[in-house]
Amino acid sequence: MRLLALLTDFGAIDPYVGIMKGVVQRACPGAPMVDVTHGISPQDVRQAAFVLASAVPYFPRDTIFLAVVDPGVGTRRRAVVVETEGPTFVAPDNGILTWALELAPPRAAWRFDRPQYFLDAVSQTFHGRDVFAPVCGHLLCGVAPSDMGTPVPLDSLARFERYGARVEADYAEARISYVDRFGNLVTNLHRRALGEVEVHCVRLGDVDAPFASSYRDVPDGEMLCIWGSFDRLEVARSMGNAASALGLGVGDYVHVLLARPTA
Amino acid sequence: MRLLALLTDFGAIDPYVGIMKGVVQRACPGAPMVDVTHGISPQDVRQAAFVLASAVPYFPRDTIFLAVVDPGVGTRRRAVVVETEGPTFVAPDNGILTWALELAPPRAAWRFDRPQYFLDAVSQTFHGRDVFAPVCGHLLCGVAPSDMGTPVPLDSLARFERYGARVEADYAEARISYVDRFGNLVTNLHRRALGEVEVHCVRLGDVDAPFASSYRDVPDGEMLCIWGSFDRLEVARSMGNAASALGLGVGDYVHVLLARPTA
Amino acid sequence: MRLLALLTDFGAIDPYVGIMKGVVQRACPGAPMVDVTHGISPQDVRQAAFVLASAVPYFPRDTIFLAVVDPGVGTRRRAVVVETEGPTFVAPDNGILTWALELAPPRAAWRFDRPQYFLDAVSQTFHGRDVFAPVCGHLLCGVAPSDMGTPVPLDSLARFERYGARVEADYAEARISYVDRFGNLVTNLHRRALGEVEVHCVRLGDVDAPFASSYRDVPDGEMLCIWGSFDRLEVARSMGNAASALGLGVGDYVHVLLARPTA
Repeated sequence: MRLLALLTDFGAIDPYVGIMKGVVQRACPGAPMVDVTHGISPQDVRQAAFVLASAVPYFPRDTIFLAVVDPGVGTRRRAVVVETEGPTFVAPDNGILTWALELAPPRAAWRFDRPQYFLDAVSQTFHGRDVFAPVCGHLLCGVAPSDMGTPVPLDSLARFERYGARVEADYAEARISYVDRFGNLVTNLHRRALGEVEVHCVRLGDVDAPFASSYRDVPDGEMLCIWGSFDRLEVARSMGNAASALGLGVGDYVHVLLARPTA
Repeated sequence: MRLLALLTDFGAIDPYVGIMKGVVQRACPGAPMVDVTHGISPQDVRQAAFVLASAVPYFPRDTIFLAVVDPGVGTRRRAVVVETEGPTFVAPDNGILTWALELAPPRAAWRFDRPQYFLDAVSQTFHGRDVFAPVCGHLLCGVAPSDMGTPVPLDSLARFERYGARVEADYAEARISYVDRFGNLVTNLHRRALGEVEVHCVRLGDVDAPFASSYRDVPDGEMLCIWGSFDRLEVARSMGNAASALGLGVGDYVHVLLARPTA
Repeated sequence: MRLLALLTDFGAIDPYVGIMKGVVQRACPGAPMVDVTHGISPQDVRQAAFVLASAVPYFPRDTIFLAVVDPGVGTRRRAVVVETEGPTFVAPDNGILTWALELAPPRAAWRFDRPQYFLDAVSQTFHGRDVFAPVCGHLLCGVAPSDMGTPVPLDSLARFERYGARVEADYAEARISYVDRFGNLVTNLHRRALGEVEVHCVRLGDVDAPFASSYRDVPDGEMLCIWGSFDRLEVARSMGNAASALGLGVGDYVHVLLARPTA
């Protein structure tokens, strides 16, 4: 059976994730499920889009991803399923699939509009339980997306605009995209955006965080920058927390000094 | 094999939940397990009773629920298994099953008192590991409850008293039962308690939170009330957190203005 | 199939644990996985060593434990697999296996140095994903450790020094090893270290916390000490949180008064 991978902003306190899994198991007993994370900041669809895309390449190719960060629940926003060459995505159509669909280009999409595949009673506040979980259960047990909804044009799917880092001759202006639990500041500067150019350091006020090849390349407590887990430039603090030490967060800019290869 | 659904107040930091699952897997290799939640406030049996009941209707009908919020561990409180037409419940007999047993009326109950089904050494502090997990493993692998304990009268099971909302001609006094991670204030006013009567608004000091049919029916940052995921009246803040904005929590009262249908 | 038990300091917010599980499932579809915990304090290898050992005796005997708390990622620290009579351990060689290997003495160990068993691209920052998860997938699906690495001498494995409690004629100086979510202070004084001697109380400034046989042996809000879940002396507060009430934490000392058996 295909694997169901779940990503939400439901957190680890409330029973919402557990209830969704119960509904999946009712619709498709024994379905294998893995959590991507449920720690997305409440209602932060953009963060969810980033995190989802960071996970997609590492899961089995035919995984079904269920991504529910859904501030528009109960409004007319669509609930969709998107098929690609690899994974299938189930989500509210609010931009959450933006970067995932760059990695796995869509082939066909449907909006869920056949209530016989939902729970009997559909609330106005919890479509994760009432709509998304049951349709995922049916997908896992073999119901075709085309049986559960109406096709929608691929170019009608909601997408966020990309904010790329600005790369100049000897510097780049990068922006913080994500901060993890270790306080690592993940920027929007991709390794591939630099080609042959190398990073020299990140300038942080009076301090330069040198480019390093491991978190321990500098003495404990000092700043560094490194190509991180997402192949993006990351500012980190050896054996410490860069975010709290610097007071920086998502959306803040950092100034990256580059070193062109000598001819 | 039946599904084991786990609910505790053990949180996500300590290894307690993992250890319980290890014990279940030792007793019954391959047993399928799903977490309802482990985020119950420490020792809050009443909250656990609410959360457990919110999950029961959404799981497979024959699920075994293991609920361990157990401030009386090591005392003479009983450890029980309760069979119903649908799910089976395993828990300390401290009221945690109160509302679950209203949804799934009990048919028979036993107290676990046969140490051969426990771990060899039973601590005074962690019966989740030493008593509850092994008996659940045995249940999952087919041992009958009657083999593991002594019958107890159903009317001897501990139950909490219900605090219902008070409904008058044109208003209701409701009480906050639960606050979720989004800051939604879930009250004890059930939709079914109002019959034909409709909610007009919830009065919050100088502000009225109008009745809405989605969280986005009012401008961002404004208050609303809505029939929420538990079919209870909920006070919420559009794209925000009502609990922190209002400084309200479990046990606080809210005043609900009603609109009788015109004859 | 053998069970994979995971322990990391990756927390519940980021997708790191989910991504590792995705990689395991790619390498070995359907592999059963259980979380020990991902709540280890960031980079606290010593805490991880304690928590891992607390879980090992309760899991199926042939469990594969993957323990990733890895501040040295990207440096020359080794990634190892250690076979014992019972479980197999996969971890960075940084001391994290210290106490687990006292419970399950090692028989053979290898360092992972064959990149064909890793992901195609190995980052400098996330060997949990790029090295540890794929080798665990291969182990679960039957690849022998000896195929994936080079033997290392058992006495070369990194080990922490033990800090034991100091036991004198009528008292013991114990140290707090771990604090759980309930605020229970778990010390390094093992029950077996006392033999026939009994604990009288723990002296906390002006207050003595009497020895108890359950958390409810004293009135609510009062301190007690008890043989806890790890068979170590624990200081607790009935229906409360001892750590926050006392302001004590890991590394702090407590003074234990003993009662020798009368001849």
